[in-house]
Amino acid sequence: MPETDLFFDDADSTREQIIEATFHALCEHGYSNLTLEKIGEEFEKSTSLIYHHYDGKDELLADLLEYLLETFEAEIPIRNEDPATQIHTVIDASFDPNEPAAGFDRALLELRTQSSHNDAFCDLFERTDALMRERLAQIIRAGIENGSFKEVDPNQAAALLHVTLLGAHASLCTNAGDMMAAARDELHRFVDEHLVR
Amino acid sequence: MPETDLFFDDADSTREQIIEATFHALCEHGYSNLTLEKIGEEFEKSTSLIYHHYDGKDELLADLLEYLLETFEAEIPIRNEDPATQIHTVIDASFDPNEPAAGFDRALLELRTQSSHNDAFCDLFERTDALMRERLAQIIRAGIENGSFKEVDPNQAAALLHVTLLGAHASLCTNAGDMMAAARDELHRFVDEHLVR
Repeated sequence: MPETDLFFDDADSTREQIIEATFHALCEHGYSNLTLEKIGEEFEKSTSLIYHHYDGKDELLADLLEYLLETFEAEIPIRNEDPATQIHTVIDASFDPNEPAAGFDRALLELRTQSSHNDAFCDLFERTDALMRERLAQIIRAGIENGSFKEVDPNQAAALLHVTLLGAHASLCTNAGDMMAAARDELHRFVDEHLVR
Repeated sequence: MPETDLFFDDADSTREQIIEATFHALCEHGYSNLTLEKIGEEFEKSTSLIYHHYDGKDELLADLLEYLLETFEAEIPIRNEDPATQIHTVIDASFDPNEPAAGFDRALLELRTQSSHNDAFCDLFERTDALMRERLAQIIRAGIENGSFKEVDPNQAAALLHVTLLGAHASLCTNAGDMMAAARDELHRFVDEHLVR
């Protein structure tokens, strides 16, 4: 399932162009079927440039994960929406099988399953997870501070939300639209009854 | 991470012995590194028997998934525990990184990520998910009927629980013990406040 340009509209350096090609090839072929040749097919310049910069697909994929983490770290969180709306927006995006990022979320999950065999992947996913959890906890803390959320444990609530969003990515692997819609509606209800005052 | 005997203590037919070998090899090597040779190393009889019965690892893995589904279908659900205890027990088992089944849950998730490239895997995961969801909904319905649970939508609550358990499997891929413990505690709290009367 090829993706439209998702993160790399303005790729200009060779590294960014190789990473963009890797991103497209990963979404289309998945991890286990991915080869440097298939990445080369998505790359506008000579494939030999890829071999010049990277030893193999795992090194390239680790660089893609690193790049995504850097981008995620640099992102400024939305501040002008109220905390409940921010949480509901994150849930809707993660539970939508038609979201442009769905193919990529699925491919990322496949990479995540390689973590027990690949220390670089494991480290990058742990850092990304910690960042994601901290962002969610920040939103929940803001809700508690402005009085719109109950006095829950922000880290604990963020951990459960994050695990549930990972479960949504796992659900994207099959044709589970009905299950995802039901789970999403229940999660919205959970947020409204359990988090929001 | 090799597993102890988990499902196949009494494997006696050749099919069951091959499936048991596949199970152990999958837990140890994961999907992308799995080969029929590695399965053969876990098999007591001649590897040529595996080649005689199966064309490749995907066919064998589909048979493993089919076998697990049959076993799951034949299992009689626990009836002598109250519904809340049953739900809490399922949560504790899924969120425990030291559970003997954790390595297998991780390997199953890797197989799940192959579903978009493999129709047999996709079909088997969809049938297993439907069964799991129905079991969870049955427990929730029993709780509503005996008055211990609130009048929630059993299918919707089961869908969210199931997605969250898939997220727990995804969390098992990295060293996320702290996050899993926090998410597990919050999920228990959710069940006690949101489901149980």
